[in-house]
Amino acid sequence: MRVAPVLLAAAFTVSAVAGQRESRIPNAALLTAAQLRERALADDTGWMLVESLTTEVGPRMAGSPGDARAVAWAVAKFKALGYDKVWTEPVTFPRWVRRSESGAVLGVHAQPLVLTALGGSVGGTVEGEVVRFADLAALEAAPAGSLAGKIAFVDYRMQRARDGSGYGPASKVRSSGPSAAIRAGAIGYVMRSAGTDWQRNPHTGNTRYDPRLTPIPAAALANPDADQLARLLALEPTRVRLALDCGFEGTATSYNVIGEITGSKAAGGKRRHEVVLIGGHLDSWDLGTGAIDDGAGIAITMAAGHLIGKLRKPPKRTIRVVGFANEEQGLYGGKAYAQAHAHEIAEHQLMAESDFGAGRIYAFNSNAPTAAQAAVTQIAEALAPLGIERVTVKGGAGPDIGPIAANGATWAWLGQDGTEYFDLHHTADDTLDKIDPQALAQNVAAYAVFAYLAAQADGDFGSAAKPATPPRQ
Amino acid sequence: MRVAPVLLAAAFTVSAVAGQRESRIPNAALLTAAQLRERALADDTGWMLVESLTTEVGPRMAGSPGDARAVAWAVAKFKALGYDKVWTEPVTFPRWVRRSESGAVLGVHAQPLVLTALGGSVGGTVEGEVVRFADLAALEAAPAGSLAGKIAFVDYRMQRARDGSGYGPASKVRSSGPSAAIRAGAIGYVMRSAGTDWQRNPHTGNTRYDPRLTPIPAAALANPDADQLARLLALEPTRVRLALDCGFEGTATSYNVIGEITGSKAAGGKRRHEVVLIGGHLDSWDLGTGAIDDGAGIAITMAAGHLIGKLRKPPKRTIRVVGFANEEQGLYGGKAYAQAHAHEIAEHQLMAESDFGAGRIYAFNSNAPTAAQAAVTQIAEALAPLGIERVTVKGGAGPDIGPIAANGATWAWLGQDGTEYFDLHHTADDTLDKIDPQALAQNVAAYAVFAYLAAQADGDFGSAAKPATPPRQ
Repeated sequence: MRVAPVLLAAAFTVSAVAGQRESRIPNAALLTAAQLRERALADDTGWMLVESLTTEVGPRMAGSPGDARAVAWAVAKFKALGYDKVWTEPVTFPRWVRRSESGAVLGVHAQPLVLTALGGSVGGTVEGEVVRFADLAALEAAPAGSLAGKIAFVDYRMQRARDGSGYGPASKVRSSGPSAAIRAGAIGYVMRSAGTDWQRNPHTGNTRYDPRLTPIPAAALANPDADQLARLLALEPTRVRLALDCGFEGTATSYNVIGEITGSKAAGGKRRHEVVLIGGHLDSWDLGTGAIDDGAGIAITMAAGHLIGKLRKPPKRTIRVVGFANEEQGLYGGKAYAQAHAHEIAEHQLMAESDFGAGRIYAFNSNAPTAAQAAVTQIAEALAPLGIERVTVKGGAGPDIGPIAANGATWAWLGQDGTEYFDLHHTADDTLDKIDPQALAQNVAAYAVFAYLAAQADGDFGSAAKPATPPRQ
Repeated sequence: MRVAPVLLAAAFTVSAVAGQRESRIPNAALLTAAQLRERALADDTGWMLVESLTTEVGPRMAGSPGDARAVAWAVAKFKALGYDKVWTEPVTFPRWVRRSESGAVLGVHAQPLVLTALGGSVGGTVEGEVVRFADLAALEAAPAGSLAGKIAFVDYRMQRARDGSGYGPASKVRSSGPSAAIRAGAIGYVMRSAGTDWQRNPHTGNTRYDPRLTPIPAAALANPDADQLARLLALEPTRVRLALDCGFEGTATSYNVIGEITGSKAAGGKRRHEVVLIGGHLDSWDLGTGAIDDGAGIAITMAAGHLIGKLRKPPKRTIRVVGFANEEQGLYGGKAYAQAHAHEIAEHQLMAESDFGAGRIYAFNSNAPTAAQAAVTQIAEALAPLGIERVTVKGGAGPDIGPIAANGATWAWLGQDGTEYFDLHHTADDTLDKIDPQALAQNVAAYAVFAYLAAQADGDFGSAAKPATPPRQ
C-alpha cells in the first residue's frame, strides 16, 4: 500500500513542524568520527567479509542451499565481529528454481543464443518467429492477437549513468514486458539484457506476470546476442527456440539476519533503544557469486558497525546492521522487516542501505525534516573528506528499507558511483575480482562515520509512524 | 617435419646469395599504392564481410554444419567481390564435438565452476580432490602416482602484451598440461584459462595428449573461477566434479577456399603465375562467432584483394587470398595447402596471414633475403602513413602459412596490436561488437598496400624450395 505523493508531502510538513528543536551533533563525536574515518580507510574488514561470503558461500539465491549457508555465515560473522546482539527473523516466499536454459536461432543461420531465464519465469520450450520491438511502448501498442504463435523481442538498450538512472526504464522492460507480450498473444518473450556491458553474460532479474494472464517463458539475451538477433531480423524472418527449465516449487523460509552494537545507557541515556539502521541484502542471484550485488553492501555495513563497536566508548543509539533476505525476488525481507517492526517506526531514527555495488560514494542526502538538517549537514561535513558531496535533490531509501521508510522512518542516501555497476549486475560476472578494495574501504569509512554520527546526535531525525491509510476526504 | 634452426639459417644464406639482383618497386606502383591506401581507409568492405560471416554463419567449428556454411559463404563472397578464380581444396581431419560441460565445487562450499572443455579433450565425469600447481613446470615435477585419484589444477596466469608474447607459455599449459597430469596419475585436469580478461567466459583451445597415455578429461576454468578455486584451496582441501561430454567422432572433410585476382599478362609478363598470398582461417571455435579469430583476418584479406581487383590496371603478380580450413585443431588447412602446393614454393613470392584479431597493425617485417630488402623497405615506407613501423627482429609466418614457409616460401609479418586480443580469444565473447571498424579498415589498407606492392615488385622475394630432408653430416 502506497501513500499518494501529495499526502506524503503533507505528512512531511507535519513532522518537520513537530520536531522543532534543532538536532545537533556534539563536537566530541565529530572528533571521534574523524578518527573512525581514517581507521576505516586503513582497515580490511570489509574486504575480508566480502571475500569470505563470495568464496565460502558463493551464489545464494533465495531459498537455495547457498542462501541457508549465507544466513549461517552472517550469524557467525556478526558474532565473530563483536556484535553484542545477533538474531534472525523469518521470511517466507515462493521458491523459484532455475535448472537449465538455452536458446537458438533456427534455420539457415542456425546458431546458439546466450540467454538466461528471468527470475519468476515459467519453464517451457517454445519455437516461433521473432517480432522485434524497439522498446516496451512499442510492444504495449501491439494489438491483441497480433503476436499469436510468435516470440516477442524487446530490443531496448539500457543507458549508462553514474546514478544508475538508466535502470528504471530497462528494468521495466523486464518486469512489464512478458505480460505485454502475453496480451498480444505471444508464446515466448526475450529482451535485450538490462545491462550496459558487451559481454556474453546475460542479466537475469525478476519479472512478475499479470496474475490474470497465462505466463509464457521469458528470458534475457546477452547484449551481443541481442545485437545478433536484431541483425538477423533485419536480413529476413527469423525463428528462434527458447527452452527454459525453471519455475516455482512451493515455498521457502529464509531469514533477515540482524546484529547490533548496543547503545550505551551510560553514554546515551534514553537513546539506546533507538537504532541507526544500516544494511544490505544477503541473497544474490544464482549466476554470479553476488559480490557487487550485494556482498559489498553486507560487507560494508557489517564492517562499519564492527569498527564502531571497537571504539573506546559505545555509541549512544544502537547501531543495527541488517542482512535482508530475498531482496531480488520481491523485497520479501524488507517487507517482513517493516511488518515485524511496524510499531517501532520512531525508534528507527535514521536508516541507510548499501545496495548499489562497490563503487565510491560520491553523494549524501537525507529526507530528514528541517529541524534535523543541521545534524545532516554536520554528517555531510564529516563525509566530505571522503570525496562525498552534500546533495538535496537526489537519492531515496534503498530497496529493503523502502517498506519501513514508506511507513515513516527517515532515510539517508549514500550515493555510490554506479557507472560500471550495470556491466555486471545480475550476471555470472558479479564476482569478487570486480571489487576495488580501496573503493570498498571508502564505503566502509562513509557508513561508519554516518552511522556513528547519527547515533550521537542530540535530537531526532523525524521518524514517525504515518497513518496506515490516507485520511478520507 | 622441422628443419633444425641452424640448417634454416644456412638455407637462408644460400638463397640470399642466389637472389643477387636487387628487387625494386617502380614509382608508378608506389603512387597507386598511396591511392589504394586512402581508398581502403574509407571503404567498408572489410566490415561488411566480417559482419556477414559472424552474423549469417556464426560459429563454425571445423567439421560442424557452421563450417560447411562458412565454406559456401566464402565461395559466394569471393565471386561477388569480383575474384576471377575461385576454388576449394579438401582438408580432412578428425571431427571433435562438444556436447555439454560443467564443473562444480563439492562439499560445504558447493558451487558451480564455469569451465570449458579443451579442444580434443575426451569426455567423462570425474570427482576428486584438487591439487594446485603454480605453473606447468611444477606439475611436470610431480612424481608419478602422486596425483592418483586427484584432479590437477595449473593456476598459471597469462601476461598481457602488445605482441601476444604471453600466449606462448600460457598455451603450453593447455597443450602439455593434460599429459603431464596423466603421468602423475591424475584423473582430471583443469587450468586457468589462457586469457588476460576477468570475465566469466573460459578460453577453449586445442590440447593434444601424448599418444602413449590414456587421456583424461581436460578443461579450462574462467579466470574468476580459477581465482575462486585457488582461494578455496587455500582454506582447505577441496573436491571438484568435472563433467565433460565431448570427444572425437570419425573424420570430417572441409575445404581451403581460395580466390584470385589474376595477374595480368599485359602488365606483368612472366609474373602472372607468381602469387602474393594473403589470408586467414575460416574455421572458428564454437563458443563465440569467431569475429576476431579469425573472421577479421578473412575479412581483411578478402577486402584487400577486392580493392586491388578494382584498380584500373590488374596487378603483375596474382593476388591469392586463402581462407584456410581447421586452423584451430592443428593447422590442418595450412598443412594440406603446403602439401598440395609443395612444388610451387618459388611461385609463392611473398605471403602474409592475418590471424591475430582486429587491432591496428603497428609493425612490419619480412624474412626476405638481402637482395629483396630494398623492396621490403619500399613497402614499409608505403605502410608508414598507417602508423606502421619497420622492425627487423620480430614477427614470423602466420600459423597457416607456417608449413609452406617452413618449406621455403618467404613471409611478411604485419604485426597487429594484440593488447586486448587475449581478453576475447577462444571465448564466447569473440563477437562482432568487439571489432573497431576504423582499426579494421587500417588493416585492410595495410594488406592492400602490401599485397599490391609485392605483386608489382621487379625481382623476387627469395622463395625457394628447401631440401625435404636435412643433408646427412
